Parts: sequence; structure tokens; C-alpha cells
Amino acid sequence: MTAQALSVLVRAFVEELVRAGVREAVICPGSRSTPLALALAAHDGLDTRVLIDERSAGFFALGMARTSERPIVLLATSGTAVVNFAPAVVEASLARVPLVVVTADRPAELRDRGAPQTIDQVRLYGSHVRWSTELPLADDTPETLAHVRSVAGRAVATALGSPAGPVHVNAPFREPLVPTGTLGAWPELPGPDRGDPAGGHAFSEATRGPRRLSRADLARMADRIAATPRGLIVAGPMETSGAAEAIAGLAVATGYPILADPLSGMRTGPHDLSHVLARGDQLARPGPWIDRHLPDLVIRFGAMPTSKPLVELLRHAQPALYVVDGDAGWREATLLPAEFVHADGAATASDLAGALVLRIPPGDDDEIAVQRRKWTGDWLAAEAAADRTMRAWLADLDEPFEGAPFALLPEILSDDAVVWAGSSMPVRDLDGWLPTTQRAIRIEANRGANGIDGVMSAALGAAAVARGPVVLVLGDLSFLHDLGALVTARIADVPLTVVVINNDGGGIFSFLPQAATIAPGVGLPDRYEQLFGTPHGIALGPIVEGLGHRHRLVDERSLAAALGDAIRQSGLTVLELRTDRPRNVELHRQAAAAAAAAIARSSGGGPEAAGAPGVSS
Amino acid sequence: MTAQALSVLVRAFVEELVRAGVREAVICPGSRSTPLALALAAHDGLDTRVLIDERSAGFFALGMARTSERPIVLLATSGTAVVNFAPAVVEASLARVPLVVVTADRPAELRDRGAPQTIDQVRLYGSHVRWSTELPLADDTPETLAHVRSVAGRAVATALGSPAGPVHVNAPFREPLVPTGTLGAWPELPGPDRGDPAGGHAFSEATRGPRRLSRADLARMADRIAATPRGLIVAGPMETSGAAEAIAGLAVATGYPILADPLSGMRTGPHDLSHVLARGDQLARPGPWIDRHLPDLVIRFGAMPTSKPLVELLRHAQPALYVVDGDAGWREATLLPAEFVHADGAATASDLAGALVLRIPPGDDDEIAVQRRKWTGDWLAAEAAADRTMRAWLADLDEPFEGAPFALLPEILSDDAVVWAGSSMPVRDLDGWLPTTQRAIRIEANRGANGIDGVMSAALGAAAVARGPVVLVLGDLSFLHDLGALVTARIADVPLTVVVINNDGGGIFSFLPQAATIAPGVGLPDRYEQLFGTPHGIALGPIVEGLGHRHRLVDERSLAAALGDAIRQSGLTVLELRTDRPRNVELHRQAAAAAAAAIARSSGGGPEAAGAPGVSS
Repeated sequence: MTAQALSVLVRAFVEELVRAGVREAVICPGSRSTPLALALAAHDGLDTRVLIDERSAGFFALGMARTSERPIVLLATSGTAVVNFAPAVVEASLARVPLVVVTADRPAELRDRGAPQTIDQVRLYGSHVRWSTELPLADDTPETLAHVRSVAGRAVATALGSPAGPVHVNAPFREPLVPTGTLGAWPELPGPDRGDPAGGHAFSEATRGPRRLSRADLARMADRIAATPRGLIVAGPMETSGAAEAIAGLAVATGYPILADPLSGMRTGPHDLSHVLARGDQLARPGPWIDRHLPDLVIRFGAMPTSKPLVELLRHAQPALYVVDGDAGWREATLLPAEFVHADGAATASDLAGALVLRIPPGDDDEIAVQRRKWTGDWLAAEAAADRTMRAWLADLDEPFEGAPFALLPEILSDDAVVWAGSSMPVRDLDGWLPTTQRAIRIEANRGANGIDGVMSAALGAAAVARGPVVLVLGDLSFLHDLGALVTARIADVPLTVVVINNDGGGIFSFLPQAATIAPGVGLPDRYEQLFGTPHGIALGPIVEGLGHRHRLVDERSLAAALGDAIRQSGLTVLELRTDRPRNVELHRQAAAAAAAAIARSSGGGPEAAGAPGVSS
Repeated sequence: MTAQALSVLVRAFVEELVRAGVREAVICPGSRSTPLALALAAHDGLDTRVLIDERSAGFFALGMARTSERPIVLLATSGTAVVNFAPAVVEASLARVPLVVVTADRPAELRDRGAPQTIDQVRLYGSHVRWSTELPLADDTPETLAHVRSVAGRAVATALGSPAGPVHVNAPFREPLVPTGTLGAWPELPGPDRGDPAGGHAFSEATRGPRRLSRADLARMADRIAATPRGLIVAGPMETSGAAEAIAGLAVATGYPILADPLSGMRTGPHDLSHVLARGDQLARPGPWIDRHLPDLVIRFGAMPTSKPLVELLRHAQPALYVVDGDAGWREATLLPAEFVHADGAATASDLAGALVLRIPPGDDDEIAVQRRKWTGDWLAAEAAADRTMRAWLADLDEPFEGAPFALLPEILSDDAVVWAGSSMPVRDLDGWLPTTQRAIRIEANRGANGIDGVMSAALGAAAVARGPVVLVLGDLSFLHDLGALVTARIADVPLTVVVINNDGGGIFSFLPQAATIAPGVGLPDRYEQLFGTPHGIALGPIVEGLGHRHRLVDERSLAAALGDAIRQSGLTVLELRTDRPRNVELHRQAAAAAAAAIARSSGGGPEAAGAPGVSS
């Protein structure tokens, strides 16, 4: 391999990545990756960042990709460097986030023979990537060049595919690793020019339209929906923001309330919010109200919802279930019989709404129509009651509460802002406390695999591409798990506000059976704090300030103003809200009891109203 | 699965791990892993630690296993938590370190259907583990119980196998996750009792002896060695400390000098050091001396040596090559024809020495014997010259030098101490500057995959099991890559001295072609500092102190005393030695020039002595 051939190869690969739509690359330093690092850095059309820790860099790229909905290129040198990408790759796969992971490697003659910094990288990410391939060595042939250019386009198209996700390109290089010749000039490379003024097409690209159901399937489903007044739409976490308006329209057409996961994109935005419920986590809880409001049919969009009560409700109610989860989606963990709709979510919602126009005419007043209006009205009334009560409960609270940031943020943030939630307790508090708002705030979390790892790095990545301020709320363990993000923040220099809910350990376990049953006297040793509570006693302020960032201790009174200040700052601001784990459980139970009482008193709450046909709401 | 059956299953599994020899477990907190976490914590025979960050915990366990030469159990809950173990698993595989990685998982009915914190964990570590298996769910049957107990013993035996390495046991659990019944009492479980007073045998265990060559093979090799005066022993990095004495004996028997990698265990210890060379990295460099001292035969033990000049010498000299690399070892990256000896290193060395007694009698004075003595003498004289000169050069140096800690440490440390070196520049400086000493100091590094990740965490693990002080020398990028280790250190609370060579970026690249060729005017943009130098400007002191550890800035005058103080402290002490990257290259070149001149002037250095037969040394 001549250095000149190497230059041609990496230039062609990078050029095709850009033509296929890549605009950002995250590079981790190394030697074997030199040819691609240079070519990426040299391309005018790419924004490149060099980050030290590959684990943090992987999540940073994930955050960029999730927020921008663009494919991000991620490059590392050979060895364990590329293994450090694996947590982010797994999350990207389950969360359907487009990443093009490029790993430099030794050539064949240096593999599996004890050469330094050489591990088995072939199909390293196993089942966790959409596609895995390996580039050939540069050899000056037109076949190799065409193949490499084609691989770049295919990698990007596959990452953006349906479902989107990570792809892996392993790229072996033989020494010398420094290419000769100009990398920066980007002369017009040969390729199909289809007259696109924006800079030409990729060598290989995929033109793709949304998958839509047939008329027959739509008619069959619409008939069933029209005949079923007691229905719900469950909007689970979704990868992209495009389906909110269509699902809101389907809710209006069906009269089905939308139990909107905070990660569905349904709670926040300019679409019709009239049927969007933000308090589903309370509404779904066991009790007399929900016993009278069990759904017969559920249309679920996206991933499984965050709310455990909602999942338990589905298990208990055993409704007929449509799961609209895109091409090849099988996400259904309640173990109910289900019909999976392998079609585009937005298209399916609007096609179904269209099919329902004649089946559920607005002015209808037959028995089913009356039941339907009553059903809808009961849910909306219960939502309103829970919403009012929870707002009042929180307003009256005179102590720190872990759900408070999510209740506040929609009032503080405006369009284009991003709220990112940690994966353990914060995302559950997000679910419980984020109200609906017409402001177009993006709500995000690492909820593919729900790990507590890499959360701050991902939010930094979001901040690198977001058009508005980004606020992350996470717990102290998740913060300490991702300390490398504080280094990444120094290098990346993006504005991010981090709210750390510091309860000195693992707060979520206080809500699990482990807390209740592992105690002296029940036959197991008292291992709770050692194994689950894991108090660490580490002060966060000195770490944050030691790494050159701002830190501020806040309480329930100063939180709102501190958030308002922080989102206007450059760089990283950490606001620390200290809470107590046992007290946190008590407060959540108090709020839930208040909400339950309000729901029971709501217009659908009386036993006399229990699904009685013919009674208008 | 009843909670009682679960209790029986995890108790049996943990009991068998202990019977098979496990004494330490590292646990990362989580919910799905509850049954095993409780059982591990409850066993009196196990020392357990709970660490937050699985990446750091993985390397911590690796450090424990490498230093103790015992198998360490590593447990995490399901999801990306277990993916964070992957970098340490890959390193353990290539470095042949015994780890039993146990990953909690969801049961079959919750996999691949969108359930929370559920990823595809089956064979997650791919080709990077020696064995991968999955436990069945508890079901109250004797078949399951016997199988689970057998798996535990086999997992430990395989991890300790030949070669040693990581194994993966995926352990699915169905709710309820809290076992009932006593976990702590450890009543005698049914199993084969072979009368071992130490506590019984494991249900399944492997009795294994070293693999030894046949007499015929030994005779064939001994004949060749006896006929070849110009031979070298190259002792590469080795996993265990058992072969040093035997290899030293082989050197005496053959007259072959030992070019001893610092990670070979040959430079430090009570064995015969008469033929052990510590300056091989200088001796092997191109020049007139080495041109007259090219070996005809090389017996290489262990992994590929760290020294690039030595590897280049082998490529250039093209000697006959025996690679003694244990069972199934194929580590040979020079691409020379080689005979791989798949037998125990220590046994092979002593068997060969035995076979050579009659073939190379001590008083012999035929032409080959004379050549042999001259050959040995030349190498030892050159070593002595280089050693004297380098010591003098360093003693005269009045500025910080990155090799200095390694030159100092053998004077400061005593038996049972551990020196751990970072993987990039530090391990090369270790190679260049660690002299021989009769003190039994263990020298270690992550040199399986040579990653800069997890180095501080690994050294903390070493400190958790070492009988003497542990000193880690690493660079600033490696330090920043593993900030989580500063949290691990807070929790683990073990004594460790860390010397950070802070040259504000990636020092090793200054020695690579990237530094010379990527500059304005040679056709490539000036990307060196952005992509390779990666200066970060981050002050280390505030980070260290912010996390509650000691930090001290040292220079060439205060280093020795600071080291002497630090190794007597509890907890973590970070000594920061600031250096300059370009100046570091100059100093290395100066030292190399001085050494080269001394080698040329040594007794084997004159052209008149060039391999002339019959000239006594």
C-alpha cells in the first residue's frame, strides 16, 4: 500500500460520508487511525471534535445523533479504545440512534499474533449493530476505490434505516500511516451526479419512503376501533419527533386519550394537546377509578412506556393491542397477545384517522358514540384533577423534591430547548412531573438500555447540536459514573446545565422490594446500604470546580432562579439539589395519595358513573 | 421459580465458586443481580467490594487478579452495565488474567421485546472470553442444581486454565429477586468430599499438570542450541512469576544473555541475574555494535517484548526462533518463521537446561565454546557499559525526566512491592530505565491490549491484594481517561501512590512519524496538536483534592523523597511530575546517544573483536 493510495482511499471514504449526509465527526486520538483522522479533520464540510475518553465520546456522539436526528461518525484507534465505544453502541442500537462507528485496525498479518494494541475487532459489537463490515487495504485498484466509496454511503444509509441504529466499519491500515498528498482540497471525485445543487449524491445511497398499511388492513383496524369506545393510545418513547401531530389527530378521531410517555414527544410541542395526558403514571395505578376504566383496546406507538403502573395496567386489563413500532419492531414486554404494525408511525396514525372519518362521524349519538364521549371525558377529567392536585401539592411543598425540576422546566425553557433525564429515578420523575406544554421542548433520555452510564456525556453531545439550551437532570451515582464527561466538557466547551439530584447513593432501590425485605429479622443479613443504597459521601462541588466548571448548591426556593440563570451561561453549570432517600419515598407516596384522591373525586370517579351507557359526561 | 429455589441456586453457585478457589468478588450495584449480590456478600469466605462504575470495577478486578494470580469474580446487573466490563474483559483475555464475569440478565420472556434494561447478553464478549455459558432459571430440580454447581467449578477452572483468561456466566433471574431463607449460614452442601480438610473440593474441578516436551523434542532443540553460540533469550511479558529462576538457569546453561522485558519478571527478584540484561532497548538499536552481534538463534518466552528496537532487531537478524508461549500460544508479530513450543515455560526452560548439561560442559574449550564465551561476554560488557552510562547521565540531569521514576523505584521499594506502568510512554520508559535488582518487586502493566484505559483502576485493584506498596506511573491522558478510578479509590480505600507524568497531552506521538511529517509545508494541514498532541490544559491537583485525595507537585529533586513518603501513606497519593513533550524527545535522544557511544566502546565494541573466533573475552 503506497501512502498515495492510502490518501486516495481515505479521502474517498470521507467524501462519501459527507455526500451521504454526515456533518459531524467525533474523533478519539490514536496512531493507527491517523489516515482517517486526518481526512475527517481536513474536510471542510465536517465539524470534528477530538475527545480523549472513548466511552464518553461514544455517548457524546449518541447525544449529538439523538438530538440532531443526523448520523454521527465516531472514530477510534485499534485496541480497547474501540471497546470503550460499546456501551454507547448498545444504547444506540436499542434506542435506534444513527451512529457510524469507524474503528482503525491492524492489517491481517498483525492480527491474533501478539502484535501491540491489536484485538479481535471483526464483528466486535456482535448483535448490537445494524451492519458490520471491513474496509480493504488501499491497493491502487479502481475496484477497491469503488467498493470503499460504496461502503461509506451504505453505512450512512443503514444507520439512518428503519429502524435506525449504529453501524460498524472496521478499517485496517498498514504502515506508513501518514498519507501523502493533499487531503484538504476535496477535488470533485468521480461519482453519479444527479444534478443536486447541494453538492452531489453519494456513490451508493438508498431512497426510501415510509411503509404504509394497505386499505384493507386500515379498514379492518378502523372497523374495530369504531366499534370499541373504551380505547387508549399509549405513546411510548420515540426516536424521532415527526409523529406527534398525526397521533394527536388520531386521538381526536377516535376519542381515545393519549397516555403520553415523556419521551414520546407528545407532551411538548405545538400539536393538539387536547387528548394528551401527562399524569398517566397516576391514573393507571390500582384503585376503584381505574377498575372502572379498563381499556378494551390499546393502540401503542413506539417503545414500552416508562411508567410501571401503566405497564401493570396493560397486563391487568388485557386489552386488544396494536403495537405500531415501525419496520420490524417487536417491542412488547407485557406478554399480551398483540398485532404488530410494521409501518411508519406517523403515516399509520394519519391513515387510520382518515379511515375513521366516516366510521365515527362527529355528531353521532348512538350508544357507542355516547359511551365513547363519556370514556374520553372521564379520562380528561381525571387527568385535569390529578394535574391540578399535583401542581398544588408541589406548590405547597416547603422542602426539596426530586420531581420539582421537571415541573419547573417547561415554564423556564422555550422552543428548541432540550431536557435530558437520567435513566434511573430521574426519568420516572420526568414521567410523573413533566406537564404538557405547547412549547417545542425536546425531551430525551438514554432509554434504549436504560443505563445510568454516559448520561452527562450524551447531554453534552445534545448541547453541541441543539438550537436552544440543554438541561440535564440526573442522580449522583449517574454523575459519578460519568466523571469523564467533566473532561469532555472542558474540551467540547458547549453550554449545558446539569441538575444533580444528590441523595448520596442509589435512590431507585428505595422503591423496590429489596428495600422492604432486606433487613435484620427477615432472614437475610442487613446488606441493603452496602449493596443497594451505596452511600459514597463524596462532595460534588469540589470535583466540578476542580475541573473548571461552575457548581451551585440549590434548594427548593432557589432552584427556579438558578435554572433561569444557568441556561444563559456558556460552559457547564452544575446545580446540586440534595435530597434524602427515605424522605423521597414518603414524598412520592404523599403526592400519589393526593393524586389518587383527586382522581377518585373527578367526574368519572363516582360509582354511579361507572361505564353506565347513555350517561353523558 | 420460587424464592426458596432461587436461594438454593445462588447459594450453591457461590459456594462452588469459593470451593473452586475464589476469594474475592467485585460487585457493581443493581437490581436484577440482587440474588447473586446477596449470596456473594453473605459468604464468609469471600472478600466483597461494591464499586459504582463497571468500567473501573472491571479493571479493578483485573488488577486484583493479575497481582494475586487468583481468579476474581465480577458481578453486574443487566444492560449496558455489563458492556462496561468489556474493555477489562478484552485486556484480561489478551493478558491471560483469570476473571469470572457474572452478568445478571432478564429471563427469556423479557428478552428482545423492549423490556427495560435488557440487551442481548448471550455471548456478549464474543471471542474475548475463554468460555461463555448461561445459567438456567431456578426450578427446584436436582438436575438444575447439579448443573449450576458444576458450571461454577468449570468457570473458575477455565479462567485459571492454560492460557488463563476471562469467562462469562450469564445468569437470568425471574422476579421475585429477593431470595428467602438463610443465605449466610453456608450449611454443608451435598457434593463429593475427597477429605480435603481445607473445606472440600468443588463439584467440578480440573486437575492439571504442566505440559512438558518429550525427550526427543528436547534433544533435538538442545542439539541445535549447543551448536549455536550466538543465541539470545528474549523474555517477554509473562502472566505469572514462576518462570524467572528456570529461565535464568537456561541462560547460564546456554551462555545466552536474556534480553529481559520489564514485564517478564526477570529483572527483579532473587533469581540469578548474571545473564539478565535491562538495557536491551539500547543494545538492540541499529549501529555497528549490533551489526556485529546479530543472533543466529533466539529462544523467546512469553508475549512480544515492549521494545521496538528489539523487535526490529529480530526482523533484521532473522534468527532461528523458538517461541515458548504456553499451551496454544501463537504470539509472534515479527512475521519470522518460528517453532512454537506449546509447553509450560518454566518446565521447558529447566528441561532444556538439563538436556544441555552434557552438550555444553562448563570447561569446554572447542571453537564453539570459545565463541560462546566471547558472545556472552560481549553482551554483558555492553550491558554494563550502557547501564553505567545511563545511570550517570540521569544522575547528572538537572531537569524532570519521564524515565526517572522507574530508575528510582527499585532503590525505594522492597520485596512484595508492585510497580505498575501506564501503557503508552510509561511502559517504554519502564523498559528503558528499570534496572535489575534482587528485590522481589512485581512489575505490571495492562499490556494485553496496551490500552491507556482503566490503568489507575487496575493499579487500585493491585493495591487491594498486594502485600507491599503499589506505585503506578502513568501519563496525564491515561489519568484523565480513568477519572472514575478516583471515585473507586474513595470507596475501595486502598493505599496507592500514583505518579502522573503530565506533559499536557499525548507524549508518545512525538516519537512517531505523525510528529515529523504533519506540519505546514509538507502537503498536510497542521493538525498535529489537534489530533495527536491533544493538549487539554486541565490542572490535575484540584481534581485529585476535590475527590478527597492527596496531590503533590514534584520535580527531579523532590521526586525520590516524595515517593518514599507516599508509599508509607494510606489512601491515594498523586505525585505530579510536569514535563515538556518536545524536550522529552530530546532527552531520550541524548540518553540514547550516550548509551550508544558507551556500547560502542565496550569490550565487544571494537571492530577487531568482531566475532573473531578464538578470541577470549
